[in-house]
Amino acid sequence: MSKPFMFEKPIGMRDTLPQLYEAKNQIRQEMKAELKLWGYQSIETPTLEYYETVGVASAILDQQLFKLLDQRGNTLVLRPDMTAPIARLAASSLKDVSVPLRLAYDTNVFRAQHDEGGRPAEFEQIGIELIGDETSSADAEVIALMIASMKKVGLTHFKIAIGHVGYVNALLIDIVGNEERANTLRRFLYEKNYVGFRQHVKSLSLSSIDKNRLLQLLNLRGDFSKLEEAKELVSNGEGKKALCELEKLWEVLDCYGITDFVKLDLNLVMHMSYYTGPVFEAYSDNLGTPIASGGRYDELLQKFNRPAPATGFGIRLDLLVQAIGIKAKQTQVTCIIYSNERRKDAIELAQQKRQAGLSVILQDLSGVKDVDQFSQGYEDIIYCIGKNGKGDN
Amino acid sequence: MSKPFMFEKPIGMRDTLPQLYEAKNQIRQEMKAELKLWGYQSIETPTLEYYETVGVASAILDQQLFKLLDQRGNTLVLRPDMTAPIARLAASSLKDVSVPLRLAYDTNVFRAQHDEGGRPAEFEQIGIELIGDETSSADAEVIALMIASMKKVGLTHFKIAIGHVGYVNALLIDIVGNEERANTLRRFLYEKNYVGFRQHVKSLSLSSIDKNRLLQLLNLRGDFSKLEEAKELVSNGEGKKALCELEKLWEVLDCYGITDFVKLDLNLVMHMSYYTGPVFEAYSDNLGTPIASGGRYDELLQKFNRPAPATGFGIRLDLLVQAIGIKAKQTQVTCIIYSNERRKDAIELAQQKRQAGLSVILQDLSGVKDVDQFSQGYEDIIYCIGKNGKGDN
Repeated sequence: MSKPFMFEKPIGMRDTLPQLYEAKNQIRQEMKAELKLWGYQSIETPTLEYYETVGVASAILDQQLFKLLDQRGNTLVLRPDMTAPIARLAASSLKDVSVPLRLAYDTNVFRAQHDEGGRPAEFEQIGIELIGDETSSADAEVIALMIASMKKVGLTHFKIAIGHVGYVNALLIDIVGNEERANTLRRFLYEKNYVGFRQHVKSLSLSSIDKNRLLQLLNLRGDFSKLEEAKELVSNGEGKKALCELEKLWEVLDCYGITDFVKLDLNLVMHMSYYTGPVFEAYSDNLGTPIASGGRYDELLQKFNRPAPATGFGIRLDLLVQAIGIKAKQTQVTCIIYSNERRKDAIELAQQKRQAGLSVILQDLSGVKDVDQFSQGYEDIIYCIGKNGKGDN
Repeated sequence: MSKPFMFEKPIGMRDTLPQLYEAKNQIRQEMKAELKLWGYQSIETPTLEYYETVGVASAILDQQLFKLLDQRGNTLVLRPDMTAPIARLAASSLKDVSVPLRLAYDTNVFRAQHDEGGRPAEFEQIGIELIGDETSSADAEVIALMIASMKKVGLTHFKIAIGHVGYVNALLIDIVGNEERANTLRRFLYEKNYVGFRQHVKSLSLSSIDKNRLLQLLNLRGDFSKLEEAKELVSNGEGKKALCELEKLWEVLDCYGITDFVKLDLNLVMHMSYYTGPVFEAYSDNLGTPIASGGRYDELLQKFNRPAPATGFGIRLDLLVQAIGIKAKQTQVTCIIYSNERRKDAIELAQQKRQAGLSVILQDLSGVKDVDQFSQGYEDIIYCIGKNGKGDN
């Protein structure tokens, strides 16, 4: 352990400079406006939560949590997601508000990174939670809103992959018999390591029919007609129920007129373990990582003593900006450089322009070491120097 | 140490519910718009920084820092302020941008609380830093912008107390002779414990003339004519230089036409130890705690190898909202409740209304347990149920 350099930031931590900030902020505001149009109310929760409550409920791998101790010896975590804090909120401060409850957030979440792999340890997530509605209409609304808000901010080429946690679970347990073996396979799916999945399936002591069923799971990606194939693979009730839910979901998505954005992916396995039903990820054509994800989690709220079905999504603002690209919409700034005796004129001129909605920098000439260099940063410069009126540009 | 209840939050941590969120957000956006009009560019820095760099430079008491260890054994801190991170940024990513540099931020900062005294451990700060300009014009601009942005968001009854770190230092050292003794007196001033200050002065082994000079310091609060009294108390160069700077500052503030908002307070001693020149605090008539504060810190940037004078302010958004009060400007929301067979109509109606800028909740009737209770939350309800057209309200 060596002392960090003065400029260094912890692993995975990033600065956001003005140009990127403006791009992010524009997208952030447009997206939040859309969430509001759909009746979602914004809330904020603390950056730090107790490990024993929200930390554990968040279901993020322990090694990805930033942990610290408070003075009383309780372990705190930097929130790794917003779903668990909102569940806490819904069960406490908002416990008297009747469901369905529609909440929105825009906040940074934290995941510790262990190497300089470029993955961020802190990123901004904008999302919603729809609590207390178990219908497919709720699942569809969440997906429809995700699509609407991505379109609103100018994303054009993207797709939503929809799966179902219940279906994968049903199929895996049906074939391999226990959770431990199912988890190994789930891990491959989560990592989208299909080669590894195939190899592992081959190594299992199963009938060739069962091996084939497992391998066929990998084919269950495409349009919704794949649901028919999926039905043939499962025999148990949980699996059939999951497919039935997906059919209903598809129907509602069709009412929204957004099925062109949607495809089926029954291999989809999520990072968070609290999901119980339909789950989804959004992909932009030009990015490998999902920009947004979400799904149904019907059992999380009962951990906070307010049992309620729920669904929601979270969008990663950094990836969304990356997918859209930074539009070079820079604010036009006027710079007024003045000398002492013209200060009052300069201040008045600046105030007039600002009142008209223009951005104006007011700069005392004696505060600038190198005027030539400084003035290069501005296209529109007004000099208020010496006795006479406006200087030339 | 007992396990926290599921609903509990760490000491000093708060949730923000929808109504307060809207009030905060409105003020936040208006304030940020004003900073932009004055040519300040927004940036973001990470929540976590190295203790050895930003943590130490921040000059917050160690016991107020939230600390944790990364995997390499480095100590990290949750940023306690934004001045040090911006200094780091100005000296690294922005090192090639010529000064004066005008930066803005809007972020949460963290200060560990050790009891349930109601003081927040996390609060949002909106502020600016003006880097590389040593003139009184820069000090005045920062104060003028602080006033302009507070007026912009509707704060009417407030005052800015202006002091000078150099003056207090010069006077105390001149009389008590060393830093340690000066610090004891400074502590009383920082805590605004004037009774304690007086008692302590009486207990010192000083001439009655010197004791009197110390006690007269407490009188140096009022309008700027107090500068004359202040001159009589100090004999050394540092003290005279400080008063000269305050005179110049006053002159520029007068050009801005804002001296009505300003008073002199030469007792002002700040929390952060990096201040070197004029410092100030903003008070609303209806709150005991300062809403905003700031000042000149000419030595901080050299710790990051980019020596430059600088000044800035930070406003506490929570206190500002408290001072202004929550204006009951709630968004009007229409709720459309529909049955299955009318889903498509309902979705179309909702989409039309949203396109017209209205907030609309679209609710599947079968997703609501208690329709009467749910519908009580909305003034404007449209039922799309059964075969016939719009339901009655």
